[in-house]
Amino acid sequence: MSQQLEGKRVAILATDGFEESELAVPQSTLRGDGVEVHVIAPNKDGIRAWNKGEWSETYDVDVALDQAKAADYHALVLPGGVINPDKLRVNETALEFVNAFFQAGKPVAAICHGPWTLINAGVVEGRKMTSYPSVRKDLENAGALWEDSEVVVDQGLVTSRKPDDLDAFCKRLAEELAEGRHDGQHA
Amino acid sequence: MSQQLEGKRVAILATDGFEESELAVPQSTLRGDGVEVHVIAPNKDGIRAWNKGEWSETYDVDVALDQAKAADYHALVLPGGVINPDKLRVNETALEFVNAFFQAGKPVAAICHGPWTLINAGVVEGRKMTSYPSVRKDLENAGALWEDSEVVVDQGLVTSRKPDDLDAFCKRLAEELAEGRHDGQHA
Repeated sequence: MSQQLEGKRVAILATDGFEESELAVPQSTLRGDGVEVHVIAPNKDGIRAWNKGEWSETYDVDVALDQAKAADYHALVLPGGVINPDKLRVNETALEFVNAFFQAGKPVAAICHGPWTLINAGVVEGRKMTSYPSVRKDLENAGALWEDSEVVVDQGLVTSRKPDDLDAFCKRLAEELAEGRHDGQHA
Repeated sequence: MSQQLEGKRVAILATDGFEESELAVPQSTLRGDGVEVHVIAPNKDGIRAWNKGEWSETYDVDVALDQAKAADYHALVLPGGVINPDKLRVNETALEFVNAFFQAGKPVAAICHGPWTLINAGVVEGRKMTSYPSVRKDLENAGALWEDSEVVVDQGLVTSRKPDDLDAFCKRLAEELAEGRHDGQHA
């Protein structure tokens, strides 16, 4: 896998309240495969992780959201945590950034509560997806086809339910990233 | 107002992560009007409040959810906080309890993220409502008619956006409680 991923660049979009493992594990896994990974957030000063129901460490931000360009990346990762997407889904700059990946047919991977942001970006209708169980009804009402699986892959869109699914999530994300653009991935 | 509310009983349904003021203010306002108020939660041992982005005090629970009967109350209050309804909306006992108020035409008041629970209870279609802005899209996709107002009242259903709206929220809740059952309030 690593050879196919050398030179790829991936954006992880998050803000305060992201589920710690859902950012840290994809970040370290991708970096281990030779991928350049940038954490992007509205606040360049750092973002607070959430872990086991409590605030955790503050993570470095590589690029401020208002300086980030979707064109610079081959794929996007959206971690969960209930607080994080609740903020991003009402941030217009975040929604435009997310939407640009879908417009360009690039892989997007969202886990846990992360898919909430995709609802507001207007990109879930007719797509096969999973999520944390509490987000299921919102995805279905937005037109998504929800499945209870550790990972669901639909033409470049990779989704998982929770931290326990991270192995499968990272594996399928790497596959979609290696494949590149997908015609079925659209805004 | 107080004379019309004497002898009324109101349930506040919440769990860990409720926005502190959105439970405490309706609780104290209603008690000041002579209303008997019970805090109902899945865990009888107490529930942790959320305030200004941090965990706050643990609040007493009067009745465990699995012991609570909707028939014992004249109205229901659902506080917000992003964590609290994210848990309640996937709790089948909570959804049955909430739904019973709508079936009986009793007033229900939900604020901030509280309306998420109403989506899973299947009671928002065609209803005029407001909420915290992040919940707007989910309510609209579930068929609600969303308005950006400090309080929206639709036939016994009272909704508000955020803690700043609590004065208007409590005032209209008291009015709906005094009026009693509403034909337009239905499951």
